[in-house]
Amino acid sequence: MKLQQVSAVKMFDGMQYVYQHESESVNGKMNVAVYMPPQAESTAVPALLWLSGLTCTEQNFITKAGAQRAAADLGMAIIAPDTSPRGEGVANDEAYDLGQGAGFYLNATQEPWANHFQMYDYVVNELPELIEAELAVDGRWGISGHSMGGHGALTVYLKNQQRFSSCSAFSPIVAPAQVPWGQKAFGTYLGDDESTWQQYDATALVLAGQTSDSEILIDQGKADDFLADQLKTELFADACFRAGQKVNIRMQAGYDHSYYFISSFIDEHMAFHYQNLTVS
Amino acid sequence: MKLQQVSAVKMFDGMQYVYQHESESVNGKMNVAVYMPPQAESTAVPALLWLSGLTCTEQNFITKAGAQRAAADLGMAIIAPDTSPRGEGVANDEAYDLGQGAGFYLNATQEPWANHFQMYDYVVNELPELIEAELAVDGRWGISGHSMGGHGALTVYLKNQQRFSSCSAFSPIVAPAQVPWGQKAFGTYLGDDESTWQQYDATALVLAGQTSDSEILIDQGKADDFLADQLKTELFADACFRAGQKVNIRMQAGYDHSYYFISSFIDEHMAFHYQNLTVS
Repeated sequence: MKLQQVSAVKMFDGMQYVYQHESESVNGKMNVAVYMPPQAESTAVPALLWLSGLTCTEQNFITKAGAQRAAADLGMAIIAPDTSPRGEGVANDEAYDLGQGAGFYLNATQEPWANHFQMYDYVVNELPELIEAELAVDGRWGISGHSMGGHGALTVYLKNQQRFSSCSAFSPIVAPAQVPWGQKAFGTYLGDDESTWQQYDATALVLAGQTSDSEILIDQGKADDFLADQLKTELFADACFRAGQKVNIRMQAGYDHSYYFISSFIDEHMAFHYQNLTVS
Repeated sequence: MKLQQVSAVKMFDGMQYVYQHESESVNGKMNVAVYMPPQAESTAVPALLWLSGLTCTEQNFITKAGAQRAAADLGMAIIAPDTSPRGEGVANDEAYDLGQGAGFYLNATQEPWANHFQMYDYVVNELPELIEAELAVDGRWGISGHSMGGHGALTVYLKNQQRFSSCSAFSPIVAPAQVPWGQKAFGTYLGDDESTWQQYDATALVLAGQTSDSEILIDQGKADDFLADQLKTELFADACFRAGQKVNIRMQAGYDHSYYFISSFIDEHMAFHYQNLTVS
């Protein structure tokens, strides 16, 4: 076992684990939270990969979103990794939106980041393969996430449909190359050549024809303080319309950017993924 | 309005508020979290008073328990106060189980605690009356809580059935006068005369005939690290048997003392209270 158990707590008749493991991709230790539903005791189950947002660890989603109830009902595993490698040897920045806790699900090419900040490879390949090798999951994967993690879910999904067959997002950064959070991160991790940014920009990917046949589900709060400047959901809506990408963008009146918003709609996302993954 | 709004976030089509207000009982400011379900926009609703455990603030329950979904479904408000007054002028102790965050839902008689640590009066009278005066609740109250808050729920309920008509608890300290947490707190807040402790001990109250006609619901994890030394559920079970108090104590295999346990069964507690409060 590469997965070393950090904690194990019973929840909804299943188990909420936190594991730590050595990651080749990020050249260091990674923490990952795993919820295994009760059905996994007797059979392998489909899994949802959840990518968290800025400043989050593997703890936020499993503590605040309330997704385990639906996971136990449906029989789905939830895999929620930390948002970056951490520790003394890992490059960092004092800002909340750069460095540790802000990996942006890309492969950094610039120093001092390139050595550890390879979160794209980690979430696309290494982590799913490790989970499939060591836990009772059956290889059917959905992907979702929040904010920076919504950006991760959309971009990873669009480019890796051989692995992920269902995608949703909460409050995603849909066009990072066009907004301050993304421009700062991409400029730092990828350098000034903006042509290298497009591979990690969901709006650019869709406009370049990197689409899927399956409908993507997005929930976005209309009272989200980051909507106008950082999220710009309309850019992705327009790109999907032009590219023929099916997307169900639900602009939710009154909801903000918090986990209170996520918890309000996570059951519907769990059902969406379960439906996509199990009904062929 | 005495309730000053600290935050307001939409959740499950209702609103999760945090308020602060001046409390006469505790002679200082108190924080209280209030979830108002969508039904409260058009009609007054029944309410659950939730009492949290050691070290908790008004935040823990509303962030981690996932109770708002059921509250929105049923049409119940949730009132979750902080576990003590706080701040520079309030007596404190370095230990996690004494002073700020450890009010034990009693009226302290000893110095330096008596001035602010009057949490019994606060949760029994001042807080419910304030909530009824200023928010759309209809005067039907249930009470529940966790650990120290489970102790609070049981003792407050047994002595105040004119206000609270339904009681449940998670992992309650059922016999504080007989366990280290309670002995430390009662000795400090109430003094060495152990006869004064009995009024705040659920097991002693039931044995003294302070019972109710309604069944009490208790969930207790069998893998709870505090069960053997601090919770001692069997003492309350025995007292209820002897006193003829109806109680449904569910010893849940594999579950621990955490909010993961609470979240696994909170829906059933919400339904229990709703049933008790609305079916006459």
